[in-house]
Amino acid sequence: MNKASDGIIIGFIGTGVMGNSMAGHLLKAGYPLHLYTRTRSRAETLCEKGAIWEESIADLAGKSNVIITMVGFPDDVNQVYLENGGILENAAPGTLVIDMTTSSPALARKIHQKAVELDIRALDAPVSGGDIGARNATLSIMAGGDRDAFDMAMPILELMGSNIFLQGEAGSGQHTKMVNQIVIASTMMGVCEALAYAEKSGLDPDMVLKSIGGGAAESWSLKNLAPRIIKGDFEPGFYVKHFIKDMKIAIESANEMGLELPGLGLARKLYEKLAASGCENDGTQALYKLVVGRL
Amino acid sequence: MNKASDGIIIGFIGTGVMGNSMAGHLLKAGYPLHLYTRTRSRAETLCEKGAIWEESIADLAGKSNVIITMVGFPDDVNQVYLENGGILENAAPGTLVIDMTTSSPALARKIHQKAVELDIRALDAPVSGGDIGARNATLSIMAGGDRDAFDMAMPILELMGSNIFLQGEAGSGQHTKMVNQIVIASTMMGVCEALAYAEKSGLDPDMVLKSIGGGAAESWSLKNLAPRIIKGDFEPGFYVKHFIKDMKIAIESANEMGLELPGLGLARKLYEKLAASGCENDGTQALYKLVVGRL
Repeated sequence: MNKASDGIIIGFIGTGVMGNSMAGHLLKAGYPLHLYTRTRSRAETLCEKGAIWEESIADLAGKSNVIITMVGFPDDVNQVYLENGGILENAAPGTLVIDMTTSSPALARKIHQKAVELDIRALDAPVSGGDIGARNATLSIMAGGDRDAFDMAMPILELMGSNIFLQGEAGSGQHTKMVNQIVIASTMMGVCEALAYAEKSGLDPDMVLKSIGGGAAESWSLKNLAPRIIKGDFEPGFYVKHFIKDMKIAIESANEMGLELPGLGLARKLYEKLAASGCENDGTQALYKLVVGRL
Repeated sequence: MNKASDGIIIGFIGTGVMGNSMAGHLLKAGYPLHLYTRTRSRAETLCEKGAIWEESIADLAGKSNVIITMVGFPDDVNQVYLENGGILENAAPGTLVIDMTTSSPALARKIHQKAVELDIRALDAPVSGGDIGARNATLSIMAGGDRDAFDMAMPILELMGSNIFLQGEAGSGQHTKMVNQIVIASTMMGVCEALAYAEKSGLDPDMVLKSIGGGAAESWSLKNLAPRIIKGDFEPGFYVKHFIKDMKIAIESANEMGLELPGLGLARKLYEKLAASGCENDGTQALYKLVVGRL
């Protein structure tokens, strides 16, 4: 399984639910893998499979020539890349860094610019497809950055995803992810409001889905989340708190471009209300509870 | 082609784009067909194929034992069914009336109640699938009313649609159609806002669709209307003015149930603004023009 012959040694920072699966694929493919994550216990299963724990980002950067990050919030990305003790301060020239966190396009451009000054290659490459996509290596990966960095990253990205595109210059991966989240935000409002209407009007929601599920109302959300809502299943596929983070980035980014997105703004407000009611660890389909008045 | 052996003689009121195709299927199946519509010229092609023009609703009702209506607004439905010279005043006991207009659930219940008093069977049976669904007889038909009326209507409905369900008592067909439109309203906001964001951020929208089209952002609207938006094609599949009508009915109906639907309310406001800017005869995807600031 050892693939070290191509000389690539991967450093992976952030082994939450997504990162764990993604790093696991790299390990399985035979890449030497160094790990760093805030909560060491979350790296244990990977270490049992042969990954090497590092005590600091500096240690990790010193031993890797490709560094992948999958952390939480833009502030974490900023810290991991740009602050003292971070990646850019410690990575050798020639290193390829890939941020797969959903984060701010402006921050991605800033990291790319500083990286270029240091002769480091940088990609922003957020994903969609959730924990299932991460587990099955079927993620959509939306990359932004330079073509040569993308080409160099491709064999690694292909171990984690199945729908991988370079969308443009630095930040374009994050922008594309924002486009994805903007679609979903209002679509979720539509699905949850529609099911609330169905319930209040005394319809049988399963029967309603038979009538509307195959036509112009069709969506991934309607197909996958409406049945969960009907069963009263609000377990997270995608957390309310993470969705709010993404919507916040999208709104800030839109504002920077002078673009007003009223649907997205409303969705964010409703989701924040939902989170404030104690549902931040529910799945996004829990918006139904707010709309139908059952919180 | 004459099917008169089962004794059914159909009266059809309202031969706009949808009604014309739908009535055409009935004629083709061999049913004797009497027509009435406000604008006589719109019935001409059907008359050339053997339909019989009637000078009034009273004349039509006197000669038919199944009456189908596909008119414009709830006010038209009210007039055609309940006012002087209307269907209920002129139809014989035993007649089956089917309103396929997208209209108010409350009005559907009122018509059903009066019909029952007169020993007339009544269904509300709005459709989705648009002009293409009407032409190809692949409409979704969502019915409300009594089981025996639905069973009697089924052989006729099957000539026009392919996904036909009795959703419940009178008004349930209209309620189900409202559920459909509520989903679509916010989904359209999401699609149009997302494409506006893509444009403003300098992304290649076709490439973006490759990244996001197969995942959690997927919808009929994204798949079918986003490519039209990208090409600058705002021709109507479904008219802005008709969508506003439907949203108005849905909001009134939700209000009657004490349900607030903020996404739907916002979509209506945006579409009314769009219509006020002279786009009421555009397709619903024209909302993009408002969001991106190109009106």
